[in-house]
Amino acid sequence: MQPSTSSLHKGISTFVPGQQNLLAQDISLPAAVLYQSRIDNNLAWMQGYANQTQVKLAPHGKTTMAPGLFQQQMAAGAWAITLASAPQVQVAYHHGIKRVILANELVGKSNMQMIADLLQDPDFEFYCLTDSAQHAKLLADFFGHVKTPLKVLLEIGVSGGRCGCRTPEQIQQTLDVIHTSEYLQLAGVEFYEGVIHGDNEVTLIKQFVAHMIEQTLTLLAAKAFDTSRVLLTGAGSAWYDLVAESFQQARLPSQIIPVIRPGCYLIHDTGIYQSSQQALKQRSQVACDIKGDLSSALEVWAYVQSIPEPGHAIIGMGKRDTAFDAGLPSPELLVKPGDGIDNVVTLDSQWQLTDIMDQHAYLSFPEGAALKVGDMIAFSTSHPCLTFDKWKQLAVIDDEYQVIDMMRTYF
Amino acid sequence: MQPSTSSLHKGISTFVPGQQNLLAQDISLPAAVLYQSRIDNNLAWMQGYANQTQVKLAPHGKTTMAPGLFQQQMAAGAWAITLASAPQVQVAYHHGIKRVILANELVGKSNMQMIADLLQDPDFEFYCLTDSAQHAKLLADFFGHVKTPLKVLLEIGVSGGRCGCRTPEQIQQTLDVIHTSEYLQLAGVEFYEGVIHGDNEVTLIKQFVAHMIEQTLTLLAAKAFDTSRVLLTGAGSAWYDLVAESFQQARLPSQIIPVIRPGCYLIHDTGIYQSSQQALKQRSQVACDIKGDLSSALEVWAYVQSIPEPGHAIIGMGKRDTAFDAGLPSPELLVKPGDGIDNVVTLDSQWQLTDIMDQHAYLSFPEGAALKVGDMIAFSTSHPCLTFDKWKQLAVIDDEYQVIDMMRTYF
Repeated sequence: MQPSTSSLHKGISTFVPGQQNLLAQDISLPAAVLYQSRIDNNLAWMQGYANQTQVKLAPHGKTTMAPGLFQQQMAAGAWAITLASAPQVQVAYHHGIKRVILANELVGKSNMQMIADLLQDPDFEFYCLTDSAQHAKLLADFFGHVKTPLKVLLEIGVSGGRCGCRTPEQIQQTLDVIHTSEYLQLAGVEFYEGVIHGDNEVTLIKQFVAHMIEQTLTLLAAKAFDTSRVLLTGAGSAWYDLVAESFQQARLPSQIIPVIRPGCYLIHDTGIYQSSQQALKQRSQVACDIKGDLSSALEVWAYVQSIPEPGHAIIGMGKRDTAFDAGLPSPELLVKPGDGIDNVVTLDSQWQLTDIMDQHAYLSFPEGAALKVGDMIAFSTSHPCLTFDKWKQLAVIDDEYQVIDMMRTYF
Repeated sequence: MQPSTSSLHKGISTFVPGQQNLLAQDISLPAAVLYQSRIDNNLAWMQGYANQTQVKLAPHGKTTMAPGLFQQQMAAGAWAITLASAPQVQVAYHHGIKRVILANELVGKSNMQMIADLLQDPDFEFYCLTDSAQHAKLLADFFGHVKTPLKVLLEIGVSGGRCGCRTPEQIQQTLDVIHTSEYLQLAGVEFYEGVIHGDNEVTLIKQFVAHMIEQTLTLLAAKAFDTSRVLLTGAGSAWYDLVAESFQQARLPSQIIPVIRPGCYLIHDTGIYQSSQQALKQRSQVACDIKGDLSSALEVWAYVQSIPEPGHAIIGMGKRDTAFDAGLPSPELLVKPGDGIDNVVTLDSQWQLTDIMDQHAYLSFPEGAALKVGDMIAFSTSHPCLTFDKWKQLAVIDDEYQVIDMMRTYF
């Protein structure tokens, strides 16, 4: 059978539901693999945390850019999906996501046109950011020209950080442009605490969030918002407890909707986000009270391609297949061709990647180990975002390694 | 117009030939951009070099995974396309590439089946590597079972390096398996000098290539090859002169076909490959005698999203859009909305990226510069491979920034 050229990507070319098993080598490796049971666990855990702290969850979708996962997040109770660019918003919209926060300034003619087109659907609820008079003017001009109302959130940032107003003057100038525009509607305040670094990050972040709450209440008192419902939104994947629990403790008036936007929880990892979640559980009693914990749901499976020297194997997986910016992938499982689920071996810390190239990685392993060319190794990763964007499709498996779905991405 | 979901990727959703110009903001940014004139230049330059040194060119296609570019390379005179994995070979085959070197050991049931399927076409000429008795046995078993002949190249490597036999014993054991298999045909010798490092790399690499030539001649004299035509192939993008010129100077017998496999030359960069090409021209008189030189053909264009502090701009481009493992992208051009080709400003080294995140980058720029939110900046890159795999499509432009084609990738 000749595959259509559009299906010619690494991983499975032809997915046959219920017919392919990872252990049986029915998939071309390297392959990115998602465990559905762990995704289900992570969906429930984070929604439970949001419910417990009485905040809305708008998971950042940029991590996966897999609309199939956005749909699972919405079905589990998410209030909206957060995204990072206009094309990402377009992808979500065309897969049925009807409430989106673009956690970025919307810039550029084509990007604005893309959003204006989506806003012709009255059921599409959309928020984007603005952080300067210059930018607000660009939005006001474009959306005024196309006569389409646009809900904007005022972004407030920190010195040396990313976007966001730094000074009261910048805030006032931005508000002045918004308020003189017929089509811009100020709908809330946005911030991102993840760029705050220092010796005492926890204190700095708490102070910053307190300032954001105060700012929002001040604007509310001054009747600065144009919408009846006012968003107050922050929180990436590392500090969402500080944000959510500050929101909860502030006993916000009912017009204010507190929204957190972690993204990596859904896939999690065994690297930077595992560490940040462990630190979070040291801080947050609420998080400890939620049953279970997040679990790393993504692996990249690859073959042992060569063992040219004792204890030195070459793996058929590289920078084209996995994130490598926050630690190298960790060997987790060893499977020999022909072996079944009862023979899957869990690897210990004597198995380590030592280097990674575009299409290869170097594995250091105990010299006595019975490793052979053609064996399969499953690697967990650090920083899920940068593994996802290497794949057009990821194999979703059940706990028996049966492929139950192919998850498409749209980068 | 509602785009089909398969076209929902960043960059252009809907390409209209001749109707879209980068300067006119007809494309959603960030966008990856290829200059066709520079690609034409690079195609001609490297083919000229290969012709001059009388070696065949089998460009490594893993860099771009854009079959449209493979076709341009073949039309310019390439002898074959080199690839790194079975799915990559499948992509090339289904886009009309009928001679492929898989510069890797072919491992795994699905990957072998993919190649066996393609080999049912008698016009498809295919070579892959083997470097151990263990691996050769896997190939012999599979291709014996499906009764399909397979041409293999013996890979020879270096201590501490990647794949490849290290010792005469490993070579002999591998050859023994090949020669006892009815379906494996030894068709040449392969090596990759790019993993050789040391104080005197040039000398080490020359010695290694000399050893490869000697080894091939020895095997030829011993009638170890099963094919009338014997490949001798090495050379990545950094040291192809040492390989090609060693091959040329060896005055190889006519049965031996010398093949080099650089890949990055087609796109080139302003980082690691610019440096290696400059070093190469210091070494190679032949390269100096070829008219012109390689030119960086890829840019990522992005918007200025925020200028929250003097001299500190946030750019709407990040690790999701560009390589970052070999130096950050370099700001090259500044374009203000509404400006035409005569107003494109070339930026100097006072403009520098200082950090990059998933979807953003920090730009440091001269405080007096008239930079505004909404301005466009074109960035050149270092390491083209890892920028290409972030894009499903790249905009091909002419020298007037008109989009003349969309180049699809298949990662």
